[in-house]
Amino acid sequence: MEILGVEKLTNEKWLNLFAAQYRHDGKTGRWVFASRKPDPQANKNSCDAVLIVPLLHTPEQPPRLVVIKEFRVPVGDYIYSFPAGLLEQGENIEETVRREVLEETGLELVRIKRISTPLYSTSGMTDETVAMAFIDVRAGPGLAQSLEGSEDIEVLLLDFAQMCRLCDATDARFDAKAWAALYLYQQLGRFE
Amino acid sequence: MEILGVEKLTNEKWLNLFAAQYRHDGKTGRWVFASRKPDPQANKNSCDAVLIVPLLHTPEQPPRLVVIKEFRVPVGDYIYSFPAGLLEQGENIEETVRREVLEETGLELVRIKRISTPLYSTSGMTDETVAMAFIDVRAGPGLAQSLEGSEDIEVLLLDFAQMCRLCDATDARFDAKAWAALYLYQQLGRFE
Repeated sequence: MEILGVEKLTNEKWLNLFAAQYRHDGKTGRWVFASRKPDPQANKNSCDAVLIVPLLHTPEQPPRLVVIKEFRVPVGDYIYSFPAGLLEQGENIEETVRREVLEETGLELVRIKRISTPLYSTSGMTDETVAMAFIDVRAGPGLAQSLEGSEDIEVLLLDFAQMCRLCDATDARFDAKAWAALYLYQQLGRFE
Repeated sequence: MEILGVEKLTNEKWLNLFAAQYRHDGKTGRWVFASRKPDPQANKNSCDAVLIVPLLHTPEQPPRLVVIKEFRVPVGDYIYSFPAGLLEQGENIEETVRREVLEETGLELVRIKRISTPLYSTSGMTDETVAMAFIDVRAGPGLAQSLEGSEDIEVLLLDFAQMCRLCDATDARFDAKAWAALYLYQQLGRFE
């Protein structure tokens, strides 16, 4: 399969629709997708965002997973997820991880254990990529959550049993990558 | 945070942009998102699609993971993922799982081990939901891949070592949920 051309259909600030013409097995087709990029074909290897899976270590307690409950406008409801955000101009992935986990949870990056390559959120609909970062964090004096006006975020610190109950909840809404991380720990039987 | 109203911005067949007005802390804002639904607010609990993580069992070999390499138009390239697809009218999740794994890989559903609730692919951009299904499959006489004209899919059967190498590949493109499933098995140290 190959792409013959891409046309921009809308003129919004943050997100637009595009129509791609493709050819496959001698036939052509049209595929409409969404992108945050001004020119999707020119930025094929960029990383748009990070999703951060933080484990909180304190002297007093076993490790706890830092989960957030956030209102998402496209969903019209609160969903369980992890700290996340778009890379800002000039930022690399590690800088975004450090900034977002601090802003959204008031916790400080100690160690990055694993960062994935930029992963496609849902590649039939969009070229958006998100790197998953598994990290350790700590609490510190003077650290505090500092949200933007468009953010409505509650931070939950879950021990292993609480995390397993959340993973099994059938009445909760989850970010897909976040649920996959919960399921990973549940199958592993421990946090690390 | 609450939604005050949602306006449809485009009139495409498969995917559209919408603008939501929201109120939070006494202020209002506008959030543009993409949806496959005619009316996003009226269908908040539906499941749009499934992503299937199949393990192939044969008498001769240890279990192998069934991964696909598929051309995705929004990405403009091939990405590693798992069999997946939209629920058709009147289908339940299990029926879609059985149909899609057969169509895309020619393998037959034997057992569903776990199905998640509908998960949000990327909830800052879209209300799309995908249930993740972990299943066992088998090969059978007469079973064969049967793709639609818009599909360009190669099926890979990976043993555990091959799966780990793919998970660590830095030059490969992945669906986010698919990479999370590879990472789960890699961390687990076995397929089940």
